[in-house]
Amino acid sequence: MLDRTETDSPREYCAVIGISLKAGAAHDAAARAYDGLLALQHRGQEGAGIAVARGGVIHCEKNPGLVTDALTQDAMDRLDGASYAVGHTRYSTAGGQTAANIQPFVAEYLTGRVATVHNGNIVNAAKLRHMLQSRGLTFTATSDSEVISVLAASHSLYSGSVTHGAVQAARELHGAFSLCLLTGDGMLLAMRDPNGFRPLCLGQSPDGLCVASESCALAATGFSFVRDIKPGELIVCENGELTSSEIFDQDDRAGLCVFEYVYFARPDSDIDGLSVFAARHAMGRTLAQEYPVDADVVCPVPDSGTEAALGYAAESGIPYASAFVKNRYIGRSFIYPTQAQREAAVRLKLNPLRANVENRRVVLVDDSIVRGTTSAKIIRALREAGATEVHVRVSSPPFRYPCYFGTDVDDRRSLIANSLDTEGICRAIGADSLGYISVGGLLSACSVPGRSARYCDGCFTGRYGIEIE
Amino acid sequence: MLDRTETDSPREYCAVIGISLKAGAAHDAAARAYDGLLALQHRGQEGAGIAVARGGVIHCEKNPGLVTDALTQDAMDRLDGASYAVGHTRYSTAGGQTAANIQPFVAEYLTGRVATVHNGNIVNAAKLRHMLQSRGLTFTATSDSEVISVLAASHSLYSGSVTHGAVQAARELHGAFSLCLLTGDGMLLAMRDPNGFRPLCLGQSPDGLCVASESCALAATGFSFVRDIKPGELIVCENGELTSSEIFDQDDRAGLCVFEYVYFARPDSDIDGLSVFAARHAMGRTLAQEYPVDADVVCPVPDSGTEAALGYAAESGIPYASAFVKNRYIGRSFIYPTQAQREAAVRLKLNPLRANVENRRVVLVDDSIVRGTTSAKIIRALREAGATEVHVRVSSPPFRYPCYFGTDVDDRRSLIANSLDTEGICRAIGADSLGYISVGGLLSACSVPGRSARYCDGCFTGRYGIEIE
Amino acid sequence: MLDRTETDSPREYCAVIGISLKAGAAHDAAARAYDGLLALQHRGQEGAGIAVARGGVIHCEKNPGLVTDALTQDAMDRLDGASYAVGHTRYSTAGGQTAANIQPFVAEYLTGRVATVHNGNIVNAAKLRHMLQSRGLTFTATSDSEVISVLAASHSLYSGSVTHGAVQAARELHGAFSLCLLTGDGMLLAMRDPNGFRPLCLGQSPDGLCVASESCALAATGFSFVRDIKPGELIVCENGELTSSEIFDQDDRAGLCVFEYVYFARPDSDIDGLSVFAARHAMGRTLAQEYPVDADVVCPVPDSGTEAALGYAAESGIPYASAFVKNRYIGRSFIYPTQAQREAAVRLKLNPLRANVENRRVVLVDDSIVRGTTSAKIIRALREAGATEVHVRVSSPPFRYPCYFGTDVDDRRSLIANSLDTEGICRAIGADSLGYISVGGLLSACSVPGRSARYCDGCFTGRYGIEIE
Amino acid sequence: MLDRTETDSPREYCAVIGISLKAGAAHDAAARAYDGLLALQHRGQEGAGIAVARGGVIHCEKNPGLVTDALTQDAMDRLDGASYAVGHTRYSTAGGQTAANIQPFVAEYLTGRVATVHNGNIVNAAKLRHMLQSRGLTFTATSDSEVISVLAASHSLYSGSVTHGAVQAARELHGAFSLCLLTGDGMLLAMRDPNGFRPLCLGQSPDGLCVASESCALAATGFSFVRDIKPGELIVCENGELTSSEIFDQDDRAGLCVFEYVYFARPDSDIDGLSVFAARHAMGRTLAQEYPVDADVVCPVPDSGTEAALGYAAESGIPYASAFVKNRYIGRSFIYPTQAQREAAVRLKLNPLRANVENRRVVLVDDSIVRGTTSAKIIRALREAGATEVHVRVSSPPFRYPCYFGTDVDDRRSLIANSLDTEGICRAIGADSLGYISVGGLLSACSVPGRSARYCDGCFTGRYGIEIE
Repeated sequence: MLDRTETDSPREYCAVIGISLKAGAAHDAAARAYDGLLALQHRGQEGAGIAVARGGVIHCEKNPGLVTDALTQDAMDRLDGASYAVGHTRYSTAGGQTAANIQPFVAEYLTGRVATVHNGNIVNAAKLRHMLQSRGLTFTATSDSEVISVLAASHSLYSGSVTHGAVQAARELHGAFSLCLLTGDGMLLAMRDPNGFRPLCLGQSPDGLCVASESCALAATGFSFVRDIKPGELIVCENGELTSSEIFDQDDRAGLCVFEYVYFARPDSDIDGLSVFAARHAMGRTLAQEYPVDADVVCPVPDSGTEAALGYAAESGIPYASAFVKNRYIGRSFIYPTQAQREAAVRLKLNPLRANVENRRVVLVDDSIVRGTTSAKIIRALREAGATEVHVRVSSPPFRYPCYFGTDVDDRRSLIANSLDTEGICRAIGADSLGYISVGGLLSACSVPGRSARYCDGCFTGRYGIEIE
Repeated sequence: MLDRTETDSPREYCAVIGISLKAGAAHDAAARAYDGLLALQHRGQEGAGIAVARGGVIHCEKNPGLVTDALTQDAMDRLDGASYAVGHTRYSTAGGQTAANIQPFVAEYLTGRVATVHNGNIVNAAKLRHMLQSRGLTFTATSDSEVISVLAASHSLYSGSVTHGAVQAARELHGAFSLCLLTGDGMLLAMRDPNGFRPLCLGQSPDGLCVASESCALAATGFSFVRDIKPGELIVCENGELTSSEIFDQDDRAGLCVFEYVYFARPDSDIDGLSVFAARHAMGRTLAQEYPVDADVVCPVPDSGTEAALGYAAESGIPYASAFVKNRYIGRSFIYPTQAQREAAVRLKLNPLRANVENRRVVLVDDSIVRGTTSAKIIRALREAGATEVHVRVSSPPFRYPCYFGTDVDDRRSLIANSLDTEGICRAIGADSLGYISVGGLLSACSVPGRSARYCDGCFTGRYGIEIE
Repeated sequence: MLDRTETDSPREYCAVIGISLKAGAAHDAAARAYDGLLALQHRGQEGAGIAVARGGVIHCEKNPGLVTDALTQDAMDRLDGASYAVGHTRYSTAGGQTAANIQPFVAEYLTGRVATVHNGNIVNAAKLRHMLQSRGLTFTATSDSEVISVLAASHSLYSGSVTHGAVQAARELHGAFSLCLLTGDGMLLAMRDPNGFRPLCLGQSPDGLCVASESCALAATGFSFVRDIKPGELIVCENGELTSSEIFDQDDRAGLCVFEYVYFARPDSDIDGLSVFAARHAMGRTLAQEYPVDADVVCPVPDSGTEAALGYAAESGIPYASAFVKNRYIGRSFIYPTQAQREAAVRLKLNPLRANVENRRVVLVDDSIVRGTTSAKIIRALREAGATEVHVRVSSPPFRYPCYFGTDVDDRRSLIANSLDTEGICRAIGADSLGYISVGGLLSACSVPGRSARYCDGCFTGRYGIEIE
Repeated sequence: MLDRTETDSPREYCAVIGISLKAGAAHDAAARAYDGLLALQHRGQEGAGIAVARGGVIHCEKNPGLVTDALTQDAMDRLDGASYAVGHTRYSTAGGQTAANIQPFVAEYLTGRVATVHNGNIVNAAKLRHMLQSRGLTFTATSDSEVISVLAASHSLYSGSVTHGAVQAARELHGAFSLCLLTGDGMLLAMRDPNGFRPLCLGQSPDGLCVASESCALAATGFSFVRDIKPGELIVCENGELTSSEIFDQDDRAGLCVFEYVYFARPDSDIDGLSVFAARHAMGRTLAQEYPVDADVVCPVPDSGTEAALGYAAESGIPYASAFVKNRYIGRSFIYPTQAQREAAVRLKLNPLRANVENRRVVLVDDSIVRGTTSAKIIRALREAGATEVHVRVSSPPFRYPCYFGTDVDDRRSLIANSLDTEGICRAIGADSLGYISVGGLLSACSVPGRSARYCDGCFTGRYGIEIE
C-alpha cells in the first residue's frame, strides 16, 4: 500500500488514550495525552481532540487535522493544569468529514459530566440511537461514538453511578469498542468489548496510569507497559486506585481484528501478547513457504511492507533490498501545481532504486491490495527501472467482505478481489506472479505460543464471529 | 465608549438571521446569510456560524472569530447549494469562551433535525436544563441557547410537529429570545419573546424571505424591510408560504431593551417603528435640555456617541465637531509589541484633533460609562490637546443593576455608578461637569409618535417588568 | 470616495518613520516604529517593513499586507533590542505588486550598510537607474526607492560619509522624496525634497527623536511634535545629537501636494503649519460659497468627506447629518461568497440612513470623483432611501492631469473628468447638481495665515512647478 | 544520525533546479520546478523559491519554510505560464537565518536580468564581495550566492553576453558551486565548479531539458537522466538548443564531496556514475570487513543508516533487522507542550522495536557522529529495550576538520572527535565497541569501476585538494 493518505487502502477510524495522574504529580495530563496522540497518529489523521477534567468541569479542545494542527499551543494552554485527560485521533469516512464528529464527545447530564473517546464501530448504533431518541434525547452529530457518549450518560444518570452507567451502556453495545470515559471529577474508565476487536492496553509510571490503543503510545508518554486490557474488561482509575472487573459473561468471542497485525498497528507495539513486528515477519516467512519463487531480491512496498519483506527474505534466502525511496516530505498539505502533474504523483512519492532492481527478478511484498490501481503504477515503475520480473506477495488474504467493526474498506464494488480472481488481479496489476497469504497462514503467523488466540477474519472469510444484523 | 472590543463597555450576546428562498431562486442561502452576518457583526465578534438545510439534512459550519475568519471559503463551499439557512454571530462572556458554545446548535431527535440560533438570555435556563436532564437528556455546552435547541427538539418529538414543539418550548422559556429555527426539510421558524426584549424583523424579495436581528441586515442581503416581528409572534416559512400567529396570550410586557437604541443597534436600523439614528439624535437633544452648558464645541466619543452629539449640538446651538480621529486599522488582531507600549494604546486608537479642541470648552458626548477608566484617559487626552473645559454628557442613565436579558454588563462591583454618585464619577474621570440623561428623558427620546412604546429599563431602575427568580 | 481599498480613488505610495533613541532609553525602537506604522497605515496597506540597527548590523523584516499581518510577533521578536529603526508602509501600483518592492531597502556597500525608506516618486529614476547600471550596479526590484538606496550607498562609499553620500544622492534626485536612512551603526538621516512635495515632521521625547510622514504618528509613539522638516532640509541624528542643514540652494519650489490636505493625510495631522482638519473644513466652507444650493441636509461620503461636509454645513447654515452607515468590519480579507453577491457590495459597505435623507434635498460632499462609478451607486442608494434631490459637492477640482510625485491616479483615459465636462459628469452620476471646488478656492482654503504657502496642484492644472522630462 | 532536523548533524546548504521547455510544450516550468524541489527537499528545509522568465521579465517567489509552505498556491499562480524556471531549496546556517538570503537572487543590470541559484560555498566570497563593493556595488544580503549573482551580472554587462559574463564570473570563484542562471529572455545556464564538489546532472524529455542537483529530481519531474554535468562544464540551453563547453583549463581537481554518498544525497540518485545506494551498501560491507564483531543482529539508525546496515549485514552474515520505529508525523511544526516533555522527545521520534533487540547483541550502523549526544540517547534506549551489547559502526570517518565547500558541520569545539579519541567516544556514548570506517575504506567503497574517481575528504583529513585562504 502506497501510504495511508491514499484512497487505495483500508482505513481505521481512531485511536484513544486516557491518562490519570496521581495527586503529587505534575498537572500535565493534557501534554502527555498530546504526546500519546502523536505516537498514535498513524491510526487517524483527520481530526484530534483532548478533554481534561479540572475542578469538576470538563474542558475539551478538538479540531480537524493532524495532532500538531488540531491542538495548537493556544489550545494546549487552555487544557493545561489537569491531572486527568482523554484524547482521540480520528480517521473519518467520506460521508462523515464534518467537524461535528471529531472526538472526544462531552455529555453533561443531570448529575455529572462525562467525556468519551472511542475506537471501533457499533453495529447496533442506529438502533440504540433510535431508542435514545424515542426517549426524547437529541444528537448533534452522526457518529456512533456520540451514541455511546449519550447512552453512557443516560445510564449513569439512572443508575446513579458512572461506573454502573458505563457497564450498562457497554452491555447494550453490539460491535467493536475500545473506550475511555472521563468524568468531571477525574474518574477514568476504560473498557474493551467482549470480542476484543480493537486493542487497548494499560501502562503505569510512578506518576499514574495510562490507557492507550497501542503500547507504542506508552513509551512516548513515559509509561511502562503493564498488560493489555482484556476483552470484556472494565478498568476504573479513581483517586490513584485501579480496579478491574469482567463486565461480560458470555465466553464466545470473535477476537482481535487480525488486520491490526497486518497493517494498522505500529510495528513497535505489542498487542495481546504478540509483537506486531514479529507477526509481520512471520507473515513474510509464511508467504515464502506458501508462494516460493526463484528471484534475485525481495523488496517491500514502503513503509508498511517492510517487516513482511524481511521475513520473506529470511525464509527464502533471497536477499532483502529497498526497491523504492519514499519522499518523506510529501504529506497531506501537498499541492499539485497543475492537473498535468498529478500523473507524476506516484513518482514523486515513490521513486525506484534502480541500483537494486535493474536486471533483477523482484519479489515485491505488500500488505494488501484494495483497488489495484496503485499496485499497477508501482509495478510499472519497477519495470521501467529495469526489473526483469515482478512477483507480488501480499501479507493479507484478498478482501472480499465488508468490515463492521471499524475498518473502512471501500464498498464491495471497488474491491478488486470481488470482480477478479487472483490470476485476473495478477494480470490487471501487471505482475509476473501474485500470491496472497492464506487465511490459515495468516492466523498461524499471528499465533501466540502457549495461548489459543482468536482473531476476527471476517473481511477475508465473511464469517464474523458475532451476528450482524 | 471607546469601542466594542474594549472591556469597558456593555456587551450583547448575539445576532441571528434566517433565510428561506423560493424554489426557483438561486440556491445561495448560505452566501446571503454570510452577507447578513457581516451587516450584524457589530452585535458579536467572538464566533459565527451558518447551518443550511439541504436534502433533509442539516449541515453546519461554525468557528471562533469574526465572520470573515470563522466562515472560510472552504466552509462556505461546503454550505453552498442550499435554499434555507440560519446564521449567528456571538459575543461570549468571559466564562464561556469555549468553541462548544458557538451557534447554530443542531439537534437530531427521533423524527427530525433542527438548527437553532438565539439572541437573548433565558432567565430560567438552569431550571429548564435541570428538567431536561431529569428526563435523561444530555448537553454538550453551557449555553442557554443549547437549552432552547434541546427543548424545542424534545417538544417537536412529542408533539409530532416542529411548529407545535417550538411553540411549546417558547411558552416554557422565561426571558429574552429572538429565535430562528430551521428544520432538515427547510421549514424556517422565527419567534420573538412576548416582551420583545430583543429586536427581530422580516424582509422579503422576489426570491424569498429573510428574518434578521436588525433591518440593516436586510439591505445588505437584498431584502426589503416588511415589518418587525411582533413580541410574542411566531412566523413560519414553508414552501414559500408565510404564516404568522400570536403564541402568547398575556398582555403585560416589559418591552424592548432600551439600550438597543442607546448603543447596541446600528444607526441605520429601524427597530419597532423607530429609527435608531433618530432615537440617538433625540437623546442628544434631551441631554441638551436636561444638562445645558456654556461651551464652544460639542464632540462625540467615536463612534457610538456621534448621533447623540449631533442632537446635542442641534438643540444647544453649540457647533458640532470631531474631537478625535479613530484609527480604523486597529482591531482585534492588533499585537502590542511590548508591554511598555500598552500604555499608549488609547493614543493609538483615538488621537485628539487639536484644531477642534484647543482653547475650547468641549461638551463630550458618550453613550455610557461603565468602569470610567477609558473616560478618564480620553478626557486627559483632550486636556493635553488644549481643551480648557470638558463637560461630559451621557446618553444613558447610570448603570446600577444587572441585566438578565442578554446584555453583559460587568458585575456590579466594577460599575462605577454603584460606588460613586454623579459628582464622584465626575471627579474620578476628571470632567468639569457630568450629566447623565434621565430615565424619563431617555424613554421620551425613544417614544414613537402615535404609539405607546414600552421599554425595558431594568439596568437603570432595577425594575424589570417581569419577575426575576 | 468610498474607501481607500476601492479602485476608484487616487492612491499614494507610502509612509515613512525613523526612530533614534538615547543611550539610556529602552531598546524598543522597533516596537515604537510598529506603533508609528499603525498610525500611518492609511497611507499604504500593501506591505510593511521595519529595519533596525543593532551592533553595527542592520536587520530587516518586511512582508506583504497590513502592519499587523506583515510584522508578526516572531518578526518583532527578531527586531527587538534596538535603539534605531526605520519603517515603511507601502501602497503598490498594479504593475508593482511584487514582494521585492516592499521597503525598507537595505544596501551593504564597501564601508557600511544603510537602510532606506521613501515616500514620493522620483521623476528621473529610470535615468539614474540607467546611470548606476552603466557603472555596473545591479538591482533586485523595480521600485524607484531602490534607486535611492543604491545611489545613496554609492555616494556614501565614494565620499567616505553617509551624510555626504545622502546629500549627493539627494541632489541628483528629481521629484518627490521624504526619506529616512539608517546606517548600521545607528545614524539616522531624514530628508525632504526641495519642493516639499510630501510631508515629513520631527518629534521628540525624553527618550529620543522621531521622524514621521505625519504628526499623527508622533502622538501614537509617545513623541511630541517639534516642527516640520523643511523642504530641502537634512536632519541627522547621531549619538543623541540632532543637526540640521539646508542641502539645496535653489529657492523656487513647487510646494506640498495639495491633495495631502484634501484626502491623503489623517485629519489629526498638522502639515507645514496647517491642520488637515482645518483645511478640509475650510474647503467645505469655500464649496458652500462657490456652489450654494437650497437644500435640507448636508451629508458626507464616509469617511473622507466628513470634515468638508461639516464646513459646508457651517457656512451654508444647512444642518449636517450622516447619510450613510459604513460597515467597519468589511476590509480587505472580505470574501464574496458568490459572484451574484458582488452587486450588493456597496450596500454591504455603505447603507443609507433613511431617517436622515427621506424626503430631503441632500448636499452630498465627497473629496474627489475619479471614475464616477462609485458615486453613481451611492447617489442611486440615496434616492432609493427617499432623497428628493442629491447635490454633489467635491472638495477637489477635477483630476485632469497625471501626477509625477507619488499619487497613483488611474491613467488619463479612465478619469471621468477627461472625457466629460462637469455637466456631463453630473448626468453620468445621476446628481441634480455638481460643483467642484475651484483651484483658487482650494488653495485659499489651504492658506496659512501669515505665511505664503505654495502647493503643487499639477493634477488639476497640468502645471507642475518643476520640469517633467 | 537521528534526522536532518536535529542539530546534531552535518548540514548542506542547498539544492538547485533549472528547467527549459520547448516552444510547443505546456508553459508549466514553475510547476515542474516545484515538483523537482519537492524531490530535493532533503537538501534544505529552511526556505525555497522559484524564478521564471516570462516575456523578458523575471518573476520570483521565495519564502521561508518547506517547499509546500514557501510556495503557496497563490505564489504558484503568479509563476504560471512560463517555459523557463530556476528553483532552490535552502538550508541556512544559524547566523544567516534571514529571509533576505533565500534564493533565487535576481539581478537587473544595465542590459539584462538574471536569476541565480547556487549550491555550494565560495571560499573567496568575502574577497569578491569586497572587490565588487570597491567598484561601488551594493548587496542586500549576506549570502555568498548573492556575490555570484552580482558578479555574473556585472561581467555580463561588460562582456555584453550573459554566457561570457557567467564564464568570467565562474573563473573568479574559488570553491564549490553548482549553479543555474536564468536570463529574462529565457536562456538557462548551468555550471559546475572545476572540482565538482557538488553534484549537478542533466535530464531531458520530449518537452525540454532539466538540470538538477540530483537525479532523483529528474524522475519526479518527468525527465530522463542524460548524464552528470562535468566538473568545469558550462551548459547553455537557448531556443531548445543545448551547447556544452569546458570553461576551466586546469586539471587538478579535488573532486566530489564524498559526504554526498555518505549522507546528503537521496539513495535513489546516481552521482558521477555511482549509485548513492550502492555506495552506502559498499560502505557497510567495508565496515564489516574493517570492524567485524560477533553479534546477533545488524540495525540501522533510521533513516540514513539503512543502506549501510544492509551492506554490513550482507557482508557479515549477521541478520538485518529494524531496531527502531520512527514516528513519521513528527516534523518541524511539532510543538512540545511542556518543557518537561522535551526529555521524552527521542522516545517520541524513535521507539525501540523490543522484539528485534531484546536479549540480542546489536550492531548499530549510523552514518556519522557529530556531537554524540543523540547517539548516547539511542544506545541507552536500545539497552532499556533489552539489547545485551551495542556495537556502533559509523559509515564515515571522524569529523575533525571544517568544511569550506558547503557542508555546515558545527564548529570544531563541538565535534566530539576533536576532543576524544575513538575509545573515548565509545565510552561517552555508552557503546560496547565503536568502529569508524577508514578514509581509505570509504574512498574504496565510493570507487567507480573503470574510472579513477577523486573525492574531497577534507573534513576527515584536513587536506582539501585546493588551497584555502
